[in-house]
Amino acid sequence: MAKASFPASFPAKDQQFFDPEVQTLPREQLLTLQWQRLKRQWERIWTTPVPFFARKFAAAGATAKDLQTFADLRRLPTTNKDELRQSEAEHPPFGDYRGAPPEQAVRLGTSTGTSGRPTLILWTRKDLEVDYCASFRARWRWGIRPGMCLANAHPFGSNAGGWHFSHGIEGLGILNVPSGPPGSDEEIRDVLEVWRRLRPDAYRLFGNVATRFAEAARAWGLDPERDLNLRIAGDHPAEQYAMVSSGLEALPLLGSACAERDGAHVAEDLAVVEVIDRHTGQP
Amino acid sequence: MAKASFPASFPAKDQQFFDPEVQTLPREQLLTLQWQRLKRQWERIWTTPVPFFARKFAAAGATAKDLQTFADLRRLPTTNKDELRQSEAEHPPFGDYRGAPPEQAVRLGTSTGTSGRPTLILWTRKDLEVDYCASFRARWRWGIRPGMCLANAHPFGSNAGGWHFSHGIEGLGILNVPSGPPGSDEEIRDVLEVWRRLRPDAYRLFGNVATRFAEAARAWGLDPERDLNLRIAGDHPAEQYAMVSSGLEALPLLGSACAERDGAHVAEDLAVVEVIDRHTGQP
Repeated sequence: MAKASFPASFPAKDQQFFDPEVQTLPREQLLTLQWQRLKRQWERIWTTPVPFFARKFAAAGATAKDLQTFADLRRLPTTNKDELRQSEAEHPPFGDYRGAPPEQAVRLGTSTGTSGRPTLILWTRKDLEVDYCASFRARWRWGIRPGMCLANAHPFGSNAGGWHFSHGIEGLGILNVPSGPPGSDEEIRDVLEVWRRLRPDAYRLFGNVATRFAEAARAWGLDPERDLNLRIAGDHPAEQYAMVSSGLEALPLLGSACAERDGAHVAEDLAVVEVIDRHTGQP
Repeated sequence: MAKASFPASFPAKDQQFFDPEVQTLPREQLLTLQWQRLKRQWERIWTTPVPFFARKFAAAGATAKDLQTFADLRRLPTTNKDELRQSEAEHPPFGDYRGAPPEQAVRLGTSTGTSGRPTLILWTRKDLEVDYCASFRARWRWGIRPGMCLANAHPFGSNAGGWHFSHGIEGLGILNVPSGPPGSDEEIRDVLEVWRRLRPDAYRLFGNVATRFAEAARAWGLDPERDLNLRIAGDHPAEQYAMVSSGLEALPLLGSACAERDGAHVAEDLAVVEVIDRHTGQP
């Protein structure tokens, strides 16, 4: 995996994978890599330590010696957002569940708050590098290539999406046109003027955002497709934002969907994924 | 000058300059460095070429051989924004004044449009690295140091300020809390809740933005200073945004103000500055 924030060079445009060395690693080597990385995280819980997880696993009867195979993962309790919220409330402001000391973090974001009070997200510089590398793979998977121009309207601020998305685009040598979510009429018009001048090769807009920009363009006498190269695929966000996959877009290191638009690829060198029955809580 | 997007290591906290090797270069060596870099830009005009400037200087009677000393700069015509706008209109969308081919650019921004139609700003990956390195120096000059937590409310999207500011903060090992400009009441409240939990060591907010957040905090029953560590210095943006300097904050590679709050430091290795009489147009 490339270490720098920007990759040193680009793959050939017709290459299927951005990072074939990792993405096509033989199964056995992949499992070895997974295991090394999982083990390192596990040991960190007991040696750094990470009090929240040490407490939680100890309460379930697990010690540092109790992770010997992947199968042992199934005997460990899962964690939900409420527990993270509680940890942050009891050990303000960051909780005691962080894998790195908060003073090593360089960026703060907040979760969306869908299920309750937003939790705080911290990234160290290493975390950002891992996220960006995963983002390069995911964006490449969409078929966008160096030399193209892509407009996006992701929000920024404490929302991590815009940052990681943009860096993934820029690192590939694609001209990123960060246009922000639609704001005032004047702001929308400024954005449309830029799009009219550039006619980007591609857009990444959620459906409602694309519709809002398209309506504003028509009100201004423009034809979105002819003048902006902006096509409205359908009302559902999944239709406009091709190859979106449940939640994965916001967590680039987990993986992403591809041109098949049927399921998603998991970045197995970076994440061990366990599928849980939401009703029973069991794997 | 460090090449990576993130510096490899941090200076000691009590060190005056972020990059003393360049920032305290003996005058003669600095002039040599300036000259090498200026000469490289000059040659690019004729060899890359950069048609806009080649045309403009040729019309003024200058050839590739006519820049032999810094003094020769004074005989060259200056350029204003209207000419860049005209170049973009005649050679859409990017004009013909760019020092690098537009297909090498990875990020697009727009100028503020203060004096007319916004011009398009392009950054190559090299441009971003130079900007970020200049930003590290400028932020260090403010006295903020690794381990601190700083909240800012810069806009993003096609506005370059938020990106460059944030990267300058994060590269120094400071926890960046990008909070976005004040939006809806709900968004403001979410931001205030984060600030309440963190009590950042420092804020960088323009005066009107600071006032808006402070008023919202009071309406919510909070004392901005006690609960958020947010002090309102005064109504004028220059009072709230300590050490702001005319325009320089938005163009980090030119330089920045310092704790003396009297003038600004110019990054002389990166920019040759000529002071022009705005009425006569003469140096």
